[in-house]
Amino acid sequence: MLDREYPDQVCSIARALEVVGQRWSLLIIRDVFLGRHRFDELCASTRITRSVLTDRLNYLVEQGVLRRWRYQTRPERFEYHLTEKGHALQPVIAHLLLWGDRYYSAPGGPPLLLEHRDCGGHPQDQLRCDRCDEAVTARDLEARRNVGALG
Amino acid sequence: MLDREYPDQVCSIARALEVVGQRWSLLIIRDVFLGRHRFDELCASTRITRSVLTDRLNYLVEQGVLRRWRYQTRPERFEYHLTEKGHALQPVIAHLLLWGDRYYSAPGGPPLLLEHRDCGGHPQDQLRCDRCDEAVTARDLEARRNVGALG
Repeated sequence: MLDREYPDQVCSIARALEVVGQRWSLLIIRDVFLGRHRFDELCASTRITRSVLTDRLNYLVEQGVLRRWRYQTRPERFEYHLTEKGHALQPVIAHLLLWGDRYYSAPGGPPLLLEHRDCGGHPQDQLRCDRCDEAVTARDLEARRNVGALG
Repeated sequence: MLDREYPDQVCSIARALEVVGQRWSLLIIRDVFLGRHRFDELCASTRITRSVLTDRLNYLVEQGVLRRWRYQTRPERFEYHLTEKGHALQPVIAHLLLWGDRYYSAPGGPPLLLEHRDCGGHPQDQLRCDRCDEAVTARDLEARRNVGALG
């Protein structure tokens, strides 16, 4: 169950943040996206202490964002992979990356570039409307309360 | 300056998380997106304590995500509005919302629906390539280290 870091918020953003808003969680997910699957790799790349990393990995497995895969039996060793639910966080990570690139880039440009494997293009920092296919920005969007939703 | 919550990470995601990854920050930004601009409105909707809310608002103003606008002089009262840099976080917020809707929806459906003002469509949970205009997912993206970037 959720631990209600953001209590009483009937809001999908608040619910999402309960899972991925904990310190380090999105950095761990980023690293798994980048192909780091083993505890020691994740420990080295995120520089999180081993006990905090263990906690966060357990929590992300519990929430169904990551799944464990045993790659060795004596001693037992596990890799962490993204579930479908974890993969669905890719746009959040990508947009955070694009925002960080735009406003907090290191000298010499962004440290990591996301490229479209087929053509070398870059993912576009743009939502599109599923009905008219127009590019939409915050100003084009209306937030409407769904009266059917229960707390 | 950044307070290095995620030290030594030459990564735009880590840099972005230093600013928006603090607990409550994204909820505050969400509420400003939804048209809540005054301290008391934000306090009521986020249910953050006044002192933490004051801290977070000051920090987000300092980082150029929000700007203060004085709407009353005696006593002085301010509204908080998104800067261009703050508006640029809209896709992060929108994708967190879509992810939360998909996996943590309340009974009765998502509590808040984002709609395209012009046509009533919904923003698409999809990145597109700026070169070939194809829809791209995590599997189509390659993360390439930018050798020119300095730590």
